[in-house]
Amino acid sequence: MIVVGELLNASRKAVGAAIEASDGGYILQVAQDQLEAGADYIDVNAGTFIDKEREYVEWMVRLIQDNTGAVCSLDSPDPEVLNQALKVHKGTAMINSISLEKERYDAILPIIAGTDLKVIALCMSDEGMPVTKEDRLIIADKLINGLCRNNVKLENIFIDPLVQPIATDQSYGAEFLNAIEGIMSGYPGVHTICGLSNISHGLPNRKLLNMSFAIMAIAKGLDGLIVNPVDKQMMASLIASETLAGRDEYCEKYLDAYRAGRFEF
Amino acid sequence: MIVVGELLNASRKAVGAAIEASDGGYILQVAQDQLEAGADYIDVNAGTFIDKEREYVEWMVRLIQDNTGAVCSLDSPDPEVLNQALKVHKGTAMINSISLEKERYDAILPIIAGTDLKVIALCMSDEGMPVTKEDRLIIADKLINGLCRNNVKLENIFIDPLVQPIATDQSYGAEFLNAIEGIMSGYPGVHTICGLSNISHGLPNRKLLNMSFAIMAIAKGLDGLIVNPVDKQMMASLIASETLAGRDEYCEKYLDAYRAGRFEF
Repeated sequence: MIVVGELLNASRKAVGAAIEASDGGYILQVAQDQLEAGADYIDVNAGTFIDKEREYVEWMVRLIQDNTGAVCSLDSPDPEVLNQALKVHKGTAMINSISLEKERYDAILPIIAGTDLKVIALCMSDEGMPVTKEDRLIIADKLINGLCRNNVKLENIFIDPLVQPIATDQSYGAEFLNAIEGIMSGYPGVHTICGLSNISHGLPNRKLLNMSFAIMAIAKGLDGLIVNPVDKQMMASLIASETLAGRDEYCEKYLDAYRAGRFEF
Repeated sequence: MIVVGELLNASRKAVGAAIEASDGGYILQVAQDQLEAGADYIDVNAGTFIDKEREYVEWMVRLIQDNTGAVCSLDSPDPEVLNQALKVHKGTAMINSISLEKERYDAILPIIAGTDLKVIALCMSDEGMPVTKEDRLIIADKLINGLCRNNVKLENIFIDPLVQPIATDQSYGAEFLNAIEGIMSGYPGVHTICGLSNISHGLPNRKLLNMSFAIMAIAKGLDGLIVNPVDKQMMASLIASETLAGRDEYCEKYLDAYRAGRFEF
C-alpha cells in the first residue's frame, strides 16, 4: 500500500495558519508525524493561497526535504506551481494531479512526459464526474494510453476513479469498487489511489464508513491511498487488509506492525 | 446480510456447562442477546455431548422457540439429531450443514430434499479441504446442482467456501474472497456464508483480522455470516459495509442503526 499523507493541506485551518505565519516547526512536526506513522509521500498543498501558492509550496518542499528527506506529493493544478516546486524537490516527486479535462491535461502532461515522476490521474473529463464503473474505465483507458504514449511508465501512474457520496446514490460505492477491480485487472502494473472522505459525506459516523470503504477497496485491488496516516485505527485496518489480500509474505508486515505496537489504540 | 448467531455452541465452556446443568436461563439469555443484536438465526450446537446431542439439541430448540420465537440453525452432521430437532422446530430452520463428502451428503440430502429448509453447504469433499478459488468453484457447482436437482431452491442454499488461515499461506485470503465473487456472480440468487475465525488462526489481534476480512468478503458479494452478533464493532462494520456495497436503499439501515445507538461502543 502506497500511503500519501494528506494532512499538510492549507484548507485545514491549523495548517493554513502555520503556512501564513511561516511556522516551520508546526509544518515539520506534521510531516514527521505522518512519516513515522507510515506515509510514503507527504502531500503538500497551499491551494487556498492564490497569489502565494508558488512561494508557499516551494517553502514547504524545501523545509520538509531539508529536515526529513521525505518525498512529496505536489498537490496543485497549476503547472507553474508544480514546475517551481520540482526545481527544488530532490528525488522522484508525485504530481497530484492530472485529469482528462483538456485544459488540465494539456497543462500537466508536459511536466511529466518522459520523466520518472509519479502521477495521480483523476477519472474526470470535460463531461464532468463519472457515475458508473464504465464511465471510469473509459476515462482511465484514455489517461493510461495518453500517458504511456508520452513516455510515462505504467508503474508510475496512479489512477484515481473518484469516490462519490453513498448518501447521494446507493450505487456509488459499488460503481467505484468495481472500477478499481476493472482497472487493476485490465492494466497489470498500474496503480489505483483515492481519497476516502467523499464516500461518507452527509452521513454520521464517517470514520466507520471511510475505514470500511478503504478495506473494501483493498479487497478489489486498490494499492494507494491519500489518507491521514496518523489515524492509528485506519492504518491498522490497511495493514490487516493488505495481509488478508495476499500482499504480505509470511504475514511479516502484519507481525512487524503488531510488535511495534501499531495495533494499540 | 443474513446473520447466524454462533454463541450457543457447546464447545464454548460456559455454554457447555449450562447445557449440562439444564440452565435454561443462561441459554435463553444468550439467545435473547443475539436476537437483540440482530441475529436472524440462532445456531444450536451440542456436538461435544456425543451420547446426549439429540436430547440436548431438542431441549435447546424448544426452550429458544417457546420463549423467543427465534428460528434456529441446527448445527450437527448427524441426521438423527437434525430429524429429531426438526420434529419440534417451528418455522423454516436452517440446516448446518451438508458437504460434498459422500457420507455426509447422503445422510443430509434426504432431510432437505423437496423442503423449504435453508441449508449451509460446505465446499468440502472427500478429497479434503479446497485450496484455490477453482477447487471451491468445482465443489460449489456440484453442491448447487445436486441440491437443485433434489428440489432445494437456489435461494435456500448458503455456500460456505471455507475460510483457511492466512498465517498458513498468504494466498488463502484472496483464494477465498475470489471464490465468493465467483459463486455470487455465477449463480445469481444463491447465498454465500462463512465463519471468520479461521482466517486469523495463529496471529495476534485476531479481531482486527476477522473484522477486516468480513468487510472484504462483503465487498466481494458475501451475504451471510456465522458470527458473534453481540460484538458491536463487528456488527457496525457489517452494517457500514452493506451500505457501501449498495445494499441499503437511502442508507436507511445505516441511519436506523445510528439512531439506535449501534455505533456507540
